Amino acid sequence: MTRRAKFRQITIDEIKSLARLQMAEGGTASLSLNAIAKHMGMSGPALYRYFESRDALITALIVEAYEALANALEETAARFADQPVRDCLRQVLLTYRRWALDHPIDFQLIFGNPIPGYQGEEKITAPTAGKVFAPILKILQRAYQQENRPYPSFLENLPPQLQVRLSHSMREFQPSLPEKVVYIGIVGWYHIHGMIMLELFNHIQPLISDPATFYSNEIERLMDQMNL
Amino acid sequence: MTRRAKFRQITIDEIKSLARLQMAEGGTASLSLNAIAKHMGMSGPALYRYFESRDALITALIVEAYEALANALEETAARFADQPVRDCLRQVLLTYRRWALDHPIDFQLIFGNPIPGYQGEEKITAPTAGKVFAPILKILQRAYQQENRPYPSFLENLPPQLQVRLSHSMREFQPSLPEKVVYIGIVGWYHIHGMIMLELFNHIQPLISDPATFYSNEIERLMDQMNL
Repeated sequence: MTRRAKFRQITIDEIKSLARLQMAEGGTASLSLNAIAKHMGMSGPALYRYFESRDALITALIVEAYEALANALEETAARFADQPVRDCLRQVLLTYRRWALDHPIDFQLIFGNPIPGYQGEEKITAPTAGKVFAPILKILQRAYQQENRPYPSFLENLPPQLQVRLSHSMREFQPSLPEKVVYIGIVGWYHIHGMIMLELFNHIQPLISDPATFYSNEIERLMDQMNL
Repeated sequence: MTRRAKFRQITIDEIKSLARLQMAEGGTASLSLNAIAKHMGMSGPALYRYFESRDALITALIVEAYEALANALEETAARFADQPVRDCLRQVLLTYRRWALDHPIDFQLIFGNPIPGYQGEEKITAPTAGKVFAPILKILQRAYQQENRPYPSFLENLPPQLQVRLSHSMREFQPSLPEKVVYIGIVGWYHIHGMIMLELFNHIQPLISDPATFYSNEIERLMDQMNL
């Protein structure tokens, strides 16, 4: 890397750090390029040489958040890859919750309230969003394809209009990915998402003594339902 | 109501309408009493005679949002009260989703990202939050207490440290409310919450053809699990 490129990277990293700080203090919608420029002692136009718009910066932060979550899941999946499917999946789902609670602003950035006026660039964000799903789909594939576990019986009676959409990145990651595996993944996803969102925003704490135990207990039940 | 009280009420309603408009345009975190005052041609201090702080206004909006959702559920429950438990509950859960999609800002206000710096007044918001839960708990009570349906078997093996917290408003609403009924309510809640949050923020649409059918199908499965 040239000295010039290195300096550019340092500046970009500093802009992102300040953006995250701003969001932590004022919410994800509070991002202001001018405020960041001011803080860095730069002019607005100078900052635009690094990010051409507020939305470009938001997109960069979203991509990094997705990637950080995906990496956390991937690392856990790799660490427990030689364990039984159920043990490996449990660890990955526990990591998902842990990451959300440890990174509340990043989690809000990708799964929380939309940022007003933000026009996402799906071409950029969708493939990285897919990376979050990939380690879980891989474990499910191992269970239902390699180990030939029976699919849960509720898959037999799905309404015909309920079609799974295999994204480009899913097809790329695994051309033979069965729709049933993706469907199970989606069902599992909304389960853990519901619990985590309620806990992250303090809605479940007034109702149940121990959200961590509640989550653990419910993911066991979820895995039972899925024959895992 | 005196002429003076009537005028006061009209002003309060106008402030709330402008606040909702502001949130719809700039997100729930964008609320500014000064901007509202300016728009109404009032001075800041004059507005403070109606709401003593930004947080007081937010609290009022949160209470109204909870009440609107609670009323929607309550009305549906009343309309289907003489139908079988499962049919009545189905309609209430469909209303829950419908209300969320029709009132995305109100839904974000009560269940979305926390508003930075907002100090909620739980003494005020908690009882109205409880009202949302009440129509559902009432239906569950009918099923498990009046109709003596068996509790789902997963309730038999709960970890001992998993205690349900009966809020003051729950005890008030129904002194004999069994913890098991509340537990089932919480489990059901995170299910529908997960699906709705993913749909509201456009995460499920890229994965499944028809989120409405998906939701309907999953609440049937949920009710099966609960012996309803």
